[in-house]
Formats: sequence, C-alpha cells, structure tokens
Amino acid sequence: MIVTLKPGSDVAAAKSRLAGLGLWIDSVERSALGEVHLVVGRASTRVESATIEGLPEVLAVSQSGNNRPRMEAQGPRVEVRAGLAIDGAEPVLMAGPCSVESESQIHRIARKVRASGARLLRGGAFKPRTSPYDFQGYGKDAATWLRSAADAEGLAVVTEVMSEADVPLISNVADMLQVGSRNMQNFALLKAVGRAGRPVLLKRSMSATVDEWLHAGEYLLVHGASGVVFCERGIRGFDPSTRNLLDLGAVALIAKVFGMPVVVDPSHAAGRRDLVIPLAKAALAAGAAGLLIEVHDEPENAKSDGAQSVMPQALLGLGFVNEVQS
Amino acid sequence: MIVTLKPGSDVAAAKSRLAGLGLWIDSVERSALGEVHLVVGRASTRVESATIEGLPEVLAVSQSGNNRPRMEAQGPRVEVRAGLAIDGAEPVLMAGPCSVESESQIHRIARKVRASGARLLRGGAFKPRTSPYDFQGYGKDAATWLRSAADAEGLAVVTEVMSEADVPLISNVADMLQVGSRNMQNFALLKAVGRAGRPVLLKRSMSATVDEWLHAGEYLLVHGASGVVFCERGIRGFDPSTRNLLDLGAVALIAKVFGMPVVVDPSHAAGRRDLVIPLAKAALAAGAAGLLIEVHDEPENAKSDGAQSVMPQALLGLGFVNEVQS
Amino acid sequence: MIVTLKPGSDVAAAKSRLAGLGLWIDSVERSALGEVHLVVGRASTRVESATIEGLPEVLAVSQSGNNRPRMEAQGPRVEVRAGLAIDGAEPVLMAGPCSVESESQIHRIARKVRASGARLLRGGAFKPRTSPYDFQGYGKDAATWLRSAADAEGLAVVTEVMSEADVPLISNVADMLQVGSRNMQNFALLKAVGRAGRPVLLKRSMSATVDEWLHAGEYLLVHGASGVVFCERGIRGFDPSTRNLLDLGAVALIAKVFGMPVVVDPSHAAGRRDLVIPLAKAALAAGAAGLLIEVHDEPENAKSDGAQSVMPQALLGLGFVNEVQS
Amino acid sequence: MIVTLKPGSDVAAAKSRLAGLGLWIDSVERSALGEVHLVVGRASTRVESATIEGLPEVLAVSQSGNNRPRMEAQGPRVEVRAGLAIDGAEPVLMAGPCSVESESQIHRIARKVRASGARLLRGGAFKPRTSPYDFQGYGKDAATWLRSAADAEGLAVVTEVMSEADVPLISNVADMLQVGSRNMQNFALLKAVGRAGRPVLLKRSMSATVDEWLHAGEYLLVHGASGVVFCERGIRGFDPSTRNLLDLGAVALIAKVFGMPVVVDPSHAAGRRDLVIPLAKAALAAGAAGLLIEVHDEPENAKSDGAQSVMPQALLGLGFVNEVQS
Repeated sequence: MIVTLKPGSDVAAAKSRLAGLGLWIDSVERSALGEVHLVVGRASTRVESATIEGLPEVLAVSQSGNNRPRMEAQGPRVEVRAGLAIDGAEPVLMAGPCSVESESQIHRIARKVRASGARLLRGGAFKPRTSPYDFQGYGKDAATWLRSAADAEGLAVVTEVMSEADVPLISNVADMLQVGSRNMQNFALLKAVGRAGRPVLLKRSMSATVDEWLHAGEYLLVHGASGVVFCERGIRGFDPSTRNLLDLGAVALIAKVFGMPVVVDPSHAAGRRDLVIPLAKAALAAGAAGLLIEVHDEPENAKSDGAQSVMPQALLGLGFVNEVQS
Repeated sequence: MIVTLKPGSDVAAAKSRLAGLGLWIDSVERSALGEVHLVVGRASTRVESATIEGLPEVLAVSQSGNNRPRMEAQGPRVEVRAGLAIDGAEPVLMAGPCSVESESQIHRIARKVRASGARLLRGGAFKPRTSPYDFQGYGKDAATWLRSAADAEGLAVVTEVMSEADVPLISNVADMLQVGSRNMQNFALLKAVGRAGRPVLLKRSMSATVDEWLHAGEYLLVHGASGVVFCERGIRGFDPSTRNLLDLGAVALIAKVFGMPVVVDPSHAAGRRDLVIPLAKAALAAGAAGLLIEVHDEPENAKSDGAQSVMPQALLGLGFVNEVQS
Repeated sequence: MIVTLKPGSDVAAAKSRLAGLGLWIDSVERSALGEVHLVVGRASTRVESATIEGLPEVLAVSQSGNNRPRMEAQGPRVEVRAGLAIDGAEPVLMAGPCSVESESQIHRIARKVRASGARLLRGGAFKPRTSPYDFQGYGKDAATWLRSAADAEGLAVVTEVMSEADVPLISNVADMLQVGSRNMQNFALLKAVGRAGRPVLLKRSMSATVDEWLHAGEYLLVHGASGVVFCERGIRGFDPSTRNLLDLGAVALIAKVFGMPVVVDPSHAAGRRDLVIPLAKAALAAGAAGLLIEVHDEPENAKSDGAQSVMPQALLGLGFVNEVQS
Repeated sequence: MIVTLKPGSDVAAAKSRLAGLGLWIDSVERSALGEVHLVVGRASTRVESATIEGLPEVLAVSQSGNNRPRMEAQGPRVEVRAGLAIDGAEPVLMAGPCSVESESQIHRIARKVRASGARLLRGGAFKPRTSPYDFQGYGKDAATWLRSAADAEGLAVVTEVMSEADVPLISNVADMLQVGSRNMQNFALLKAVGRAGRPVLLKRSMSATVDEWLHAGEYLLVHGASGVVFCERGIRGFDPSTRNLLDLGAVALIAKVFGMPVVVDPSHAAGRRDLVIPLAKAALAAGAAGLLIEVHDEPENAKSDGAQSVMPQALLGLGFVNEVQS
C-alpha cells in the first residue's frame, strides 16, 4: 500500500498518525517535484482505506488488487462432512498412525483416538519416503481398512494422495484429501485434487512462504476444491535439535489476521514424542483450529515415524474429552 | 551415544527394544569382524545408560562426556533477587518499553505493567540498531530512570548491556543483565558480564543452534554469572510475513527435556502488535517460564519498535492478574 | 564411521593420525568398561577403511552400508544422446528461453544459443507458476516447436515434465527430461519419469539437503532412468538480495568428492540478469559439468522470468565458442 | 522506487519499457482516483531516474534517500598500507593459520604463503570459540609473533579483534583489523574499531542480510575507519554437508552492482580441506577482490580448524604466482 501525502504535509505527523492506526512505514519515497509517498510495510492490524483517506495529511491511498480472490472469499469455515466443520469455534482433533499397517492396527487405534476426542482418523495408505528402499505404504488395501475403521468409530477420514492417478481411489475413501508438504507446489496434483471437488488439507512445504502457501490454496479452489484447510507442520531450519521448525507465527497470522482455517501437525515439527503434546497445546493457544497428531500404540514397532508417535493415552492431556470413554 | 550389541544378536529386535525406551537409531555401523554398533540419534526422552545395558542384546553403551557441566548443574531455577525467581513453577512476566524515552514515560509504563502482573520492568538504555543513524538510547540517564521507576512500583529490572565498558553501570541498576541476540557469541562481553556475578538473561542469536546457545550460557557461568535464563526471541527465517521465526520447539526442548529456565520474547518474534498475545500464550503452553514483552502506551510515537509494542491493557489478556489493580 | 581404538591407546595421537588422513572426529564415546570409539564427522577426503585399520592405535572400523547403491554406481558420465554426454571433461551449455512462446521465437533463439556454443536447447512447454492466474505454458504445441527448433540447429532438447500424464509426450520430444525443484520429492512423478528409461536432469528442491537430493536420484535410477544429472539452482535463503541462494559448496562436493555429474542454473539463483554470467563462471570454477541458462532476445516482453534472462550475446562471455558463428 | 504513470497510460507498455531498462515491477498500486504507481522490485542493473522520467508513460519517479552515504561514497578501493590496496583490479591473497600457535610456526608458514603469492598474513591471536573450554588463542604474544613473521617476509597483517579493550593492541600489530562474524553487529566493538582509523575487514554474520552487513560497514566509517572491505565466509544453512553456505550471489552483487570491495573466505564456508580450492576459484570468478584462506603445514596438529586448513602448496593451484619461489 502506498499513501500519498498532500503537498506540504508534515511527514512525521503523518507517519505517527498512520502508526496510530497500526500501519508502519517502510520507506518514504520523494519525487523531484516534491511529492511524498509513504510505503506501508508491516501492518499491526487490518485498516480500511477509507479510514486512511480521512487523515488530514493524506491525499490518496493506492493498493494492488487481490491476487488470491477465492482464498479471500472462503472465510474461516470448511465443512469436512455433514455435521463436522473446521471453523475455529472449537478445535478439531485428527489423529491416527503415520502408516496404516494392518486392518487390526487401524481398527484398534481408531477406537483409542475416538475415545480421546478425535473427530477425524488419519493414516497413510501411500507414504512419501526419502529413500526408495523404505516402506512405501500398503496402498489400496490400507485405504480400505482406514475407511472401515473410521466408519466403525463414527470418525471422518483424512489421508494423503500422492499421485494424480490415485485421486479417484482416495476420493472414495476420504472425507478430506491431504496434499503433503513435498507436493505443495506439485501443480499437476493440485489441479487433479481440486477437480475432485472435496475439502483439502494442504500441508505447507518446508520452504514455502505464507504467500506461496496461500497461492497453492488458490490453485485448489480455482480447480474445484470445496474448501482448503492449511496445515503447518514445521519448515526447514538450521538446527537439528528438532526435526522441523514449527512456525506458529504463520499460524497466528493466518488464523487471527487473515481469518482462514489452519491446523497444526506437531508430530512432524517435533520429530520426537516428548515434545508433541507441549507443541500441540502451543498451537491451540496460537489460534490453530485443529491438530493432526501421529498416534501409535506400539511406536517401537511402527513402520514409519515411531519416534514422533505418541501413545493414544497421551492425547487425553489435550483436554478434548473430559474423561476417558471406551 | 553408541550401543554395541552382543555378537549374533537380532539387530531388529534390539532396535525395537531401544525404541521402546525412546531411543531411535540413526545408523547401524558394522565392522569387518562383525561387530554391530547402533548410533542413537533422536531420543524421545532421557534414558539412563544402566537401563540400556540391561537389555538382552546389549554388550556396552558408550557416551561422550558432558561438555557443558555448569549449565547441566544449574537446574531449572534462577533467582533474580530475593523473593523473585524464574523457575517454571509460576510464569514470570517481564514488560516495559523497547526504549526508555523519558523519566515520566518509564514511570507511567512501570505502573501500568505492574498492574498487569509484571514482576520485572524491561526498557532499553543502550539500543542495538541496524543503522548508525537510528536512535541509540539515552544511555546512563535512561538507566537511572529505569531503576527509579522499578523501585517506585516494587519491580525488578532487566536491561541490556551492549559494551564491556558498561557492565559496571548496568550492574548497578539492573537485577538481571540482558545479553542481546547480536551479542550472544560476543565472547568478550560474555566474560565481562559473567564476572559481574549476577543473573543473566541470554537472548538467542538469530542463527544459533540450541547447542551453541547453551555453550554461550556455559561461558557466562564459567566466568561467574549467578544464573542463566535463556530467552527465545525468534530466529532468522526466509518468510517476511513475520519479523522473526519463533522456535517454540527449542523452548519445549530446553524446558521439558533439559530442565533449564527459558522465557520467550514474542514481541521481536512477531514484529507486529496483533500477533504478540497469541504467541505469548503459545509460549507459555510450550513450557516457557516467563515472558518478555514490549509495551508502550503511545506506540505510534515510540522511538523504536512501535509496531510490535502492545498497549498495557493488552497484557491483561494473559491472565497474570485476575483483575485490574491500580 | 566409527573407529574403535585398541585398549590403552593414546587418544590424542590417534585423533592426530586420523586427521592426517583427512578424517576429523566429532565425538569421543567411552563405555563403562573403558572402550573408546571415535565418531568420524567431516572427512576432508575419501579414505579406504583398510588404511585406517592399518594405524597402530586402531582396533576396528565400523561403517554403515551404502543406501544409494545405484547413484554410487552411476559414475560421473551421463549420455544425453549419441555423441553428447555430460561428464565433466568439457562443460556443456544448455540454454534457451524460460517459456517457449511461439514457433518463431524458439527457432530464433535456438539459432542464437547454438552460435554461442550451446549443445542443448531448453524451454518450458509446461510452466510451474506460483499463481494459478499466471501464464502456464503453451503445452503440447510448445513441445513440438521446441523439438523442431532444436533439430533445425542440431541441438538436443531438455524440458520439464510436470505431470505423470505428460511423461509420454515429453519423452517424445526431449532427449533429457527435467524434473523441477518443486517436484524433487514428488515421488509419483519420479517413478513415472524413471520408467521412461531416459536421462533426467534433476533440479534440487529449495529445501533439500544434498542427501535428500541424491536419494531422489536413487528413485529415478531404481525405476529405470538411464542416468541422472543433478542441477543446482539456488536454495531458499533469508536474504531478498538475490532470488535464491546458490550453493556452490554442494556443487563442489558432488562433483569433486562424490564424482557425480552436476550442472548449475545461475538464472534462477540470481533472479537478475546482471549476476547470471558471474555466477555461471563461478559454477564452472567450482566444478560444474555444465550450465543451464535462461536466454531471451526480448526479455522485456518475456512471458516469464524476463528479469533473469540474458541476451544471447551475453553467453559469448562464457567462452564456449572462440568467436561468433552464425 | 515508485514510478507514477501519466493518467490514461498503457500500463503493460510502461512495464515492458521499464523492463527493457532492466527494472522489473513487483506490484501495480492504484488509487480510487485512478492514479497508477508501479513499485520497482528487482533491478537487473542500475538506471538513472532521469532515464526513467524520459519514458512517454512516466509522470514522476520517487525514491527514498540513501541511508548508507559513507559506504556509497567509499568506492571499490581500500588501501591496506602504502603500496597495497584491495581494489578488484588484481585479486589479493591473504593466508595463514587459523591460530598463531608459536613463533616458529607463524614464521614458517609466513614464508610459505609469501612464496604462494600472499600479500597479507592472517592468523588468530584471540580466537572466538563456541565452547569456553576450547583453545582461546595465545593473545598478546601471538600478536607479536604474527607481526614479526609478517615483517620478515614483507607481508601485511590482518587479524581479528574480539574485544573493545584489545583495539589498541591489535592496532599496533595489524595493518587491517578484522571484525569476526559473531561480532558483525557488536556495535560497541564496531565503534571502537572505527575510532582506530584503520582499514577493516568486516566478516558477514551468519544470519545477516546484505543490507544489514552494509549498515555495519556504515557504523565503521561513521566512527572513523579508513576503509571497509567486506568478507563473505558462508552463512547459516540447513544442510550439514558443508560447514556453512557460501553466498557468492551476494559477492557478485556487492562487487559488480554496488562496486564495493569484497573478499571471500572459502575455508570457513567449506569446513573441509578438499573443497577450499574449488570454492576459492569460484569466488574469484564471481568477482571477489581477494581471498582469505586458512593454511597450515601440519593441519592434523592444528589447535583449531585443522579440517579446513589447506597445505601451503595447495595455494599454488590458485595461480597467484607463476612458479614456486623460495
């Protein structure tokens, strides 16, 4: 935003008045003819341009157009299925194993996470793995087991789709389709997933700015997705102390300033079980509308991500249920 | 840590058993003679080596020595002054303006932050600024005003010392000496501050790993500091959406796993007023033992950091007091 | 790598001797029974384990297995087509416009880059763009024009494939298939591209470690690619001064230590025309086996990446030809 | 820079014309009254505002003032001592051990680096070390040995000053004072070093933007430094493959666009001996006016940085001398 001042205005007074509204000036640009333009950098809050135009020193306010019209129009609420929405009013717990490892495993864990207050069951049928020699998921079978386990417990399903070719299969079993971090800017996949017309959980790429992330959401909506929920899971950092670097500033920004739905995956951020619950609580405090947590009842035998999977009972510490149900 | 297995052991069984304890293996290293060493990477929790040595497959456990003995010995509690400690039992609020701008300003703000539950008054007498042409603080006068304002309200004082030469002056007015981010590895300053024999608030450098940060704390203790409290204020990130990238994973790690005192400065992390309170709440949820918050009653006229300073009444949302006192 | 010492050895002497070989110790781990293991961190060069075992203090050397066997086996040479290989012996120039914008444009530019010493013609038929409202490439038509322009000049073709569904089409027109940064860990695409059995130019993800990048290459080879050439194009950094952060340390490491073929795209690294040629020269000095450069003869009208496209004549400064041919 | 268009101008034509000059538009901002301002982002080259004002669509050009006037005024040449300048005309080699370890060591190495074409001798008397238990340098004695070794070989001296208190001592022995990475924003030290009135080698902080780095140079000049030479030594990255991330884009920008003197330290960037020479060559190709290289004749016994120290004869590969002198 550029605020142009009336000729002869007191620049310092104008800057102070704008700051009083929560608009902070990055630079003052002057022309040879003496025109003064203030370039607004950080804004402490959203301000209508009419308010700015009302200030005594201000001649005009210039702005660029909205380049993410559909994301801006969506608002804070995304319906996952009838009776279940992510809207920030009440946080939603999504939990389950990293990988769906067997029919009995997913049924067992589904029951436990439901008892801890989860409303969605997560679990990978197709797994993105750094090495081609690592376990790649049980695919179609796993997808079927996941659906049946969720149905048995009255849970909705969120699971990752990794290939354009798998969109029909995953659409059949999932209420919400997940696009993983490594595919956040896989535009062919975004288009294919969008065309399925479903709600999408869009994980942030390890190197994406918030702006790039929201643009990826725009791809989904343009191509037909019924809604986009953002999921922060930690970005790439320089410190090996934690697996990834959880960016709760971005979460607060999206939730509190942009008014868009955003949830947090503390499991991938932490990479270690003992930090998952503190980071989950922090995420809710920062404004997250939900949590996506990896849970396993035998993490030492998990086929993937055992180090960061919590035991089902650990979820109780989050307070989604008042006491254990079974 | 290296876990050496007994000859002929089942490696997968050993890995699973170690994982059951919360120890996750980064690599399996084998010698030509068939010895198998498991290199432990991430640990989900702290485990005694005797416990590991008791496993059936384990021959020996090897470890490197502790290279930060004084930090390890300190424990979670640091006394700021008689009757006031940072210990994680009850979070401590430190608040005040970025810069001490006048005697009346600091007295006025001291009264307001005390009413919001603050126990320490912060305020810069000497200010580190990117440009030599920016306001550099009112120096010695500001330090005197800061002390008198704190005394008038029964608050302790924390303020930054930027130069070895200023250590005596700042030691006279402050209960706790602050070392700023840009000086975290200014070893000459760490030594001088340590020799003052006082508690120190050590801010994390924008590019420091947790390990480097703890080593900087070790410098302070070796040279005589009575205690070190770590302060996370956001590290350097690639996304201009927020001023810095708040690393609450590091906070949870230091507080929950290492058992050391750590507080959070959400103001510098956010860089914008509207995200300060959500990030403050998130910090406490992650395990922070306290908060350091920039407060101004006329942020639009602040000489520095106005964009990220909250109004005094905003602190009430943090719940440090039940209702407004005055 | 773990080097276990003979009982009673002089640890300092052993460390010095290992350092003399170029092996530097990260930590010394001791067991309760007095065994000493030296964990090798950085290696200044490659050393055979037999050499280490010959040192007087050394009892045994333990190593983990090779987890990228096909990448290790490939060696430094990849054949693009008969008579054209990327092998580091003589650098190979790949040049052309960001996007193929018309049949005449690509023919015109092909002629010019050939005259500057290019052996491959680059040009995007399908373009990955941050916003869904930006130009997405002319698709199949562009691919056809690209091939005919290359043929007219005797050039080989490298172009990006963005979707699993486009692999057959791109395989028909390209000698070498390019996988873009944003798809480096799009494992479905890596598998589909690998199955085409062709040489692949694998760009580094903005947030990938070298290790993750090489693993992505392993996916391609496991699934059938005839060869993998790595392409560094800048990673995500915190400084907006340049578009990306060119990591020539990684290039030197892959080329000089790992002995694998790696080329550099200075255009995306710089993001601005005036830095492209200096960075191109730096890349060759660091060991790059080739360059991938964006060229346009009317950059002010380019549909994408005009700011970082150099004029064809600028390539002459790289010395691929002794004088202008036409 | 903001370019305001004449009412009714063709915005696309204006953007193309500006791009033709090398100015690329980040955003188009419009007021309610229809004024159009183009905000210039990346510039492919420097353009005078008179040139822009001459374009048919342009009404006015607005710019912010120069906030680093002394750095801008310095120009590309800094004199180290009579007869020795860093000016980019001919690269200057600075070499020597990480630490000055004994009188004989520094004399021996000084002779060897002189024979390889070095004009300045480097060597640490005071060493910044992450741990307080690591070797901290031999201090004043080392400084004296360094000077005498340099004098014996006709070399100039560059060495680091870590403390305000040491500025007089180091000024006595060094021709050029070095400010280390960890002190780049230690403003008390910058002021003290500036007051010495000498040329300064200013290393970049691991997390500094180019803009912050140039501002630190401005501090030095404002306080009296006779000249500032920037030294890139690698910034903090996420990949442990190399010790730091060498940013040659920043080097090319400072050298080629800003016209300021910048040298490169490939030793700290690489962290491993085998990559130092390739990165040194790359630095010169990118536009560096000199190199700062760690050299040791017994790196396996070096008290610090042995892994990244090259043998003296390795310098010959850089071509600073035609053949070995002795």
